[in-house]
Amino acid sequence: MQRWAVRLEYDGRDFVGWQRQATGLSIQQVLEDAAGRLADGSIVPSITAGRTDAGVHATGQVAHLDFPSTLRLTASIVRDALNFHMKPHRVAVLSACAVDLAWNARFSAVRRFYRYRILNRRSRPALDEGRVWLVKRALDERAMAEAARHLLGRHDFTSFRASACQARSPLRTLDRLDVARHGEDIVIETDARSFLHHQVRNMVGTLKLVGEGSWPPARVAEALAARDRRAAGPTAPPDGLYLTGVGYDPDPFRPERG
Amino acid sequence: MQRWAVRLEYDGRDFVGWQRQATGLSIQQVLEDAAGRLADGSIVPSITAGRTDAGVHATGQVAHLDFPSTLRLTASIVRDALNFHMKPHRVAVLSACAVDLAWNARFSAVRRFYRYRILNRRSRPALDEGRVWLVKRALDERAMAEAARHLLGRHDFTSFRASACQARSPLRTLDRLDVARHGEDIVIETDARSFLHHQVRNMVGTLKLVGEGSWPPARVAEALAARDRRAAGPTAPPDGLYLTGVGYDPDPFRPERG
Repeated sequence: MQRWAVRLEYDGRDFVGWQRQATGLSIQQVLEDAAGRLADGSIVPSITAGRTDAGVHATGQVAHLDFPSTLRLTASIVRDALNFHMKPHRVAVLSACAVDLAWNARFSAVRRFYRYRILNRRSRPALDEGRVWLVKRALDERAMAEAARHLLGRHDFTSFRASACQARSPLRTLDRLDVARHGEDIVIETDARSFLHHQVRNMVGTLKLVGEGSWPPARVAEALAARDRRAAGPTAPPDGLYLTGVGYDPDPFRPERG
Repeated sequence: MQRWAVRLEYDGRDFVGWQRQATGLSIQQVLEDAAGRLADGSIVPSITAGRTDAGVHATGQVAHLDFPSTLRLTASIVRDALNFHMKPHRVAVLSACAVDLAWNARFSAVRRFYRYRILNRRSRPALDEGRVWLVKRALDERAMAEAARHLLGRHDFTSFRASACQARSPLRTLDRLDVARHGEDIVIETDARSFLHHQVRNMVGTLKLVGEGSWPPARVAEALAARDRRAAGPTAPPDGLYLTGVGYDPDPFRPERG
């Protein structure tokens, strides 16, 4: 067997999420079906760095797949053949690289990077529908940035954790949560070693309450300290969320290793 | 009658272009149908600054419409009511402002701004299909920028003009044609008082020949001097083209006038 890591981009609107479900098409199924065709009909399971929810997009998701060594694949064959077989679904392999069997897209990952896009204007998006969260009330991005700083560091994030979250511990270390405005777009960039289920969307839904003036920034610190999901704001919709990258040390996609 | 100027965003993929055609849905039809509903069934014709082709997008198109004064409209009613009636089509009014009957979206315009987006990578776009031109061969954006400078200024642009172009004169003054790379994205920004039909797409199709090394930059000057459409490169696809703005002097959308 030869293990291959692949970096993926996808439009979350078309899927029930990463994981296979009886209710509809998943990104996992599209990838594994394409991998099966490349492997002459064998079943090729995949492991991913982050099982994104329905409607959540990715520009830098990472997964791994094991192919029989007898196929004599190269990185460009893996990329181009998977892309060919995944058509017309809106999933694309951006790059592929051979990795050791000890390497694991999920367990070797040391960092996850997410971006959340808010469109802050009155008119609905004609070009970016399903790809941004439309917030019509004017948001104060400086207040949001101030509030965000209360969440940085190592904390019990129970207040920002989905009830369905399966992680053993609610402790996480948030290393970045930046809020910036570019015209009508408010972009929130965040990264951590790992996140709880819905953590990013729950943080964004809470920062939005601050941005619209419903909450003073310091109330976010109180919500965190409460360790109670009901103390924080609502879950932001999946539309604006993008998994932009996964960090590995060393990074197998670096040219010197790929 | 009260004349209203509206600034529009739309996704060109869904339409046969700005102008009404028997072959399918146009942006003009979506806008005028919505305006007709707002005007209780009256026919409300529109005039636009630029009749974009099928597949061409806009983030800052401008049009004007005349509504009966008896409707007592306000800028936010015009914006919100048109947006309501245009659903679910991917067209949005970003803002509206009352203008004099002497003001004309087309004839008062003194500048058109376009952006062209090339995605320069091997993998097809999962998130931006139909919204970028995918060019798989590596492009040298510095050579493209050098070539672009040969087109700046007042010239006979016959070599970059569609055979169907109805303009009386092929003389145009190109004030900006910038080429910049942001990672895998190559963004071309251009503006002029007006453009010939297909001029931007023909310039981009020619710059792509330079970027991939098929043409030296100086050959663009020769193509321009030839005044022959066959001397320049092919027409770039509509997918990557965005009408980003229209300039007026004074600008009716400035808060002090709107």
